Amino acid sequence: MTITVLRLGHRAHRDHRVTTHCALAARAFGADAFVFSGERDSSIILSVNDVVKRWGGPFDITYEFSWRRWLAARKKATIVHLTMYGRELEESIPKIRKIKGDLIIIVGGEKVPREVYELADYNVSVTLQPHSEVASIAVFLDRYFKGKELTKTFHKPELRIVPQDSGKEVEEVKSE
Amino acid sequence: MTITVLRLGHRAHRDHRVTTHCALAARAFGADAFVFSGERDSSIILSVNDVVKRWGGPFDITYEFSWRRWLAARKKATIVHLTMYGRELEESIPKIRKIKGDLIIIVGGEKVPREVYELADYNVSVTLQPHSEVASIAVFLDRYFKGKELTKTFHKPELRIVPQDSGKEVEEVKSE
Repeated sequence: MTITVLRLGHRAHRDHRVTTHCALAARAFGADAFVFSGERDSSIILSVNDVVKRWGGPFDITYEFSWRRWLAARKKATIVHLTMYGRELEESIPKIRKIKGDLIIIVGGEKVPREVYELADYNVSVTLQPHSEVASIAVFLDRYFKGKELTKTFHKPELRIVPQDSGKEVEEVKSE
Repeated sequence: MTITVLRLGHRAHRDHRVTTHCALAARAFGADAFVFSGERDSSIILSVNDVVKRWGGPFDITYEFSWRRWLAARKKATIVHLTMYGRELEESIPKIRKIKGDLIIIVGGEKVPREVYELADYNVSVTLQPHSEVASIAVFLDRYFKGKELTKTFHKPELRIVPQDSGKEVEEVKSE
């Protein structure tokens, strides 16, 4: 069972950092993969892969020209669309947690096509207020995993943080 | 007792959308105010105030040239700095929840000055992984408020969402 976050409608100039934050939040909060569509933007892939190299994996990031084709090839997955117009998070999470197969979590860009609302098995709102796809991914996954993702161990990191009251301590991880 | 999110080191060009997302996440997840420092950027203030006008308040957003002076004038507040190098969220939250006075939640930009780690009463890591200040604000507040903020009612909104299984429904709110 895998969780993939699909980000629609990326605009290379305007969304560069927000899409990068979406991908990093997806990784940090326990998703397995991140796919983005819209404008091609290889620098996002490079910087996320650099984080994976330093802080551990596995975590896949890919660009897909056609998200429709990509979704059509994954008919068995359950689709969760995070949108401020959907059903409340706390009502939706228990149902989604029961699903056994793969999960695809869609977040939009500025304008989400109507068909996404129809394709989705669950339209879920993380608050009924406008805010951020980055926040929605993080809070959704934190609730989905009940906080277990906060201490997730990543595979083959080069670096690891030693939590501190004040200041920074990072240790190098020697792999055999 | 108020909660203010302070965002350091804003760069007008590069951080425009991420700082806007920080402010909107702060509002949506229950903070009372947002202050940002770094480069002046009045368009962020305009767009956040526009959200407040349409979706309700109260929520203050201001720019401060000197965050040091701003913090120095708030000596009684407890300072929580969200950083990947700090103490784990689940260890920190119960302590922070007991605090009675005002809370200032600091999130950094690219480079956070060492003094911020020392000024902070609590350095708190939301996961020990690199991700996003937007995600950190949202997950911290969601944990702090135990999810109660998800259904927070805002004052005098013009618009209100009616949650749907599929599609969008927004109703206009008539105020007397």
